Amino acid sequence: MREVADVTPDELASARPLRADARRNYLLLVDAARAVFAEQGGDASMEAIAKRAGVGIGTLYRHFPKRIDVVEAVYRTDVDGLVDLASALVVDRAPWPALVAWLEGFVRYAQTKRTFLSELFEAFEKNPELKSVSRERLHDAMASVLVRAQASGDVREDVDASDVMQLLGPMCTSPTLSDGQIERLLAVVEDGLRAPT
Amino acid sequence: MREVADVTPDELASARPLRADARRNYLLLVDAARAVFAEQGGDASMEAIAKRAGVGIGTLYRHFPKRIDVVEAVYRTDVDGLVDLASALVVDRAPWPALVAWLEGFVRYAQTKRTFLSELFEAFEKNPELKSVSRERLHDAMASVLVRAQASGDVREDVDASDVMQLLGPMCTSPTLSDGQIERLLAVVEDGLRAPT
Repeated sequence: MREVADVTPDELASARPLRADARRNYLLLVDAARAVFAEQGGDASMEAIAKRAGVGIGTLYRHFPKRIDVVEAVYRTDVDGLVDLASALVVDRAPWPALVAWLEGFVRYAQTKRTFLSELFEAFEKNPELKSVSRERLHDAMASVLVRAQASGDVREDVDASDVMQLLGPMCTSPTLSDGQIERLLAVVEDGLRAPT
Repeated sequence: MREVADVTPDELASARPLRADARRNYLLLVDAARAVFAEQGGDASMEAIAKRAGVGIGTLYRHFPKRIDVVEAVYRTDVDGLVDLASALVVDRAPWPALVAWLEGFVRYAQTKRTFLSELFEAFEKNPELKSVSRERLHDAMASVLVRAQASGDVREDVDASDVMQLLGPMCTSPTLSDGQIERLLAVVEDGLRAPT
């Protein structure tokens, strides 16, 4: 059986299917990193992340040769999560609750992202495609829930996913916003999106 | 009689009262610069600005020794305009129309600002107080129209001027937004601000 330590970062970053146990271990490391970033900020040490995941530092370094690789993995995993969330919501929920649930997921993602924002900007500089591809994937995921809520008459017709992305932008990039303020902003945007009655 | 050419930039930038004719000439130069920036971008030449204002290049340079001084003057004048607009609206208009009119003024200001954004960032770097003081003045101007519309029951209670500033942020700083998109975003924000009925 292949162990988590046998999986290379390239394999993990690619869309290639992983054995279920390898994928599970990878996500365990990513979850540990996300939690440590949230508590200590994006400059938390590799030691702290390994300790939280309950693995040796060597195991962590085998997966992620550099700290920036951990940042990129957390970010990629969160974007994947939002894409999957949209796919699930358009099947499982009515149009308006689906949109609201996706926007709430987006805000959680934004809050995570803000804990390692300067490190993420470094990762974007190293790999500009990471930014453009992720933005496009998020745009398309949002569009899938938004267009459906427009078709059902719940959301005004005169906006598109790019508009909503713009409105949510500050929640993703302003390091000074409090969680309470983010929730207030989201409430205003949601009410503003409702179709006129 | 003091001519416009006798007024120093320091006097113009300060709150010191100017003779009416000097102030008028100053505003004429600023209006010309704003129009030229809108047409040609923030790197338009001093020659183009002087030509538009119908003055010699020497006159323009006496007022504004460097191009960045012109940028700063346009910006200061626009912020002054929004502060004055708020003061007038809280006297002249009902609370909700006053807020809408101020937000529309703010968006016009943002559209102007976007024509010389990189030059303005240079001016902020040279003079950080320009940014912090202007932001505070705009915040207070917005608060005066917002709080009034909350007191009248037109606007939801759970937002403050900082929240609205955040929502309008992308309209001020994103160089890629079209005028049409800005109007759509403003419509969403306005509808989102209305108190629940």
